[in-house]
Amino acid sequence: MTIGVVRVVGIGPGALDLMAPRALAALQQAEIIVGYRTYLNLVASCFNPKAEVLSSAMMQEVDRCRKALELAETGRDVALVCGGDPGIYAMAGLVFELAKNQGNRCRIEIIPGIAALNACAAVLGAPLMHDFAAISLSDLLTPWELIEKRLEAAASADFVTVLYNPKSKKRTSQIERAREIFLAHRAADTPVGIVHAAGREDETMQLCTLVNMLDASIGMQTTVTIGNSQTFFWENRMITPRGYAGKYSI
Amino acid sequence: MTIGVVRVVGIGPGALDLMAPRALAALQQAEIIVGYRTYLNLVASCFNPKAEVLSSAMMQEVDRCRKALELAETGRDVALVCGGDPGIYAMAGLVFELAKNQGNRCRIEIIPGIAALNACAAVLGAPLMHDFAAISLSDLLTPWELIEKRLEAAASADFVTVLYNPKSKKRTSQIERAREIFLAHRAADTPVGIVHAAGREDETMQLCTLVNMLDASIGMQTTVTIGNSQTFFWENRMITPRGYAGKYSI
Repeated sequence: MTIGVVRVVGIGPGALDLMAPRALAALQQAEIIVGYRTYLNLVASCFNPKAEVLSSAMMQEVDRCRKALELAETGRDVALVCGGDPGIYAMAGLVFELAKNQGNRCRIEIIPGIAALNACAAVLGAPLMHDFAAISLSDLLTPWELIEKRLEAAASADFVTVLYNPKSKKRTSQIERAREIFLAHRAADTPVGIVHAAGREDETMQLCTLVNMLDASIGMQTTVTIGNSQTFFWENRMITPRGYAGKYSI
Repeated sequence: MTIGVVRVVGIGPGALDLMAPRALAALQQAEIIVGYRTYLNLVASCFNPKAEVLSSAMMQEVDRCRKALELAETGRDVALVCGGDPGIYAMAGLVFELAKNQGNRCRIEIIPGIAALNACAAVLGAPLMHDFAAISLSDLLTPWELIEKRLEAAASADFVTVLYNPKSKKRTSQIERAREIFLAHRAADTPVGIVHAAGREDETMQLCTLVNMLDASIGMQTTVTIGNSQTFFWENRMITPRGYAGKYSI
């Protein structure tokens, strides 16, 4: 029997001109395309018209990945669509875990994409120019104690910090606690950049400070970037210096 | 006078099929293209044949950015080429800093790209699936004490950690110290993935463990990814679980 393939495809932030050609090729050649409805809608124009499309609601990641692996095992060419980069808070890991546990024998290829943190940084200016940490505030799959420990570590060591999944309708206290932790280590006027739906039609960007960040509109499609002690605002941009000014005359 | 533009273009890891169409368009339409020689060579086929190309050697970032801004101020369309993502250890921040200090009046646009950390993760499997930190070991622009503090914080809070600029001919002790710090917090057999030139013709990938990582070939074009306490190897891949196994039956 032919061995099939699951290509775990990063479509980038949503704008088609920010999706890599390798991802486009995978979408065009796939016989079966599996993914979360919102992401599939962003790239539906790229599918082969003959492709079978299996869209699912949010929170069905395990079913989605399992289905993709099963179909690939029958010899099919399957694209599993992820927003951003499949390797950052998306489905690349789950596909490998399931394949390992189930003993699937198909090829698995990860096609990287521009992640939310990359896209948001470009919208904001250049906030990630120095060492940074990415932390998801969702405690659905991670104990809150561990998340809090990471927030504390990132805050105390002056990492620029990108917060994924900062808040949902049911989860509202985590972003408040994150702000408290950072305020214990960083100035109240530390720049914070809040981007919603980077690279999509409804993209919005808010610049604020650590002390007033909770006044901003924050939801599940939002990425929050907290600057380090050197980050500054200039002409509606958020910029973290790399350190050239200390070394050279600039 | 026409106001010019500097587009700070992320070309991704080096393979042309991992560069976003928006970056390609910027390279095709630029009248002047400025960049470090190695990166320009990777994308030279994309330039307008009439474009003026100003290539420079390594370590001339300040001159390069200043030149791009000056040319844009004369009304020209300038592309400043960066490897990976311009916002991660590249030139986006420096362009803004110089524009601020010099009072340049031109448009600055950041075009994000697939960064080395994204590309290396895809080559390795799925090592960045949980909270992670990116740290540059170069103490050229950053005091070593601060780098060490960040290594300590990342290691103690169980962040997957991506080390940029791990070693050069002159700088060899930093990676040794980083390993020591991580060994104080993480098991000797913690998976480590070492990728050289991800996405380029000379790409290589080495999987090893924290205790023996110094036996691997590591240089300036290398990115070192240290797993967290849950990261594992499976079929020549490095995988960090997101936590689905604790929540669902997988």
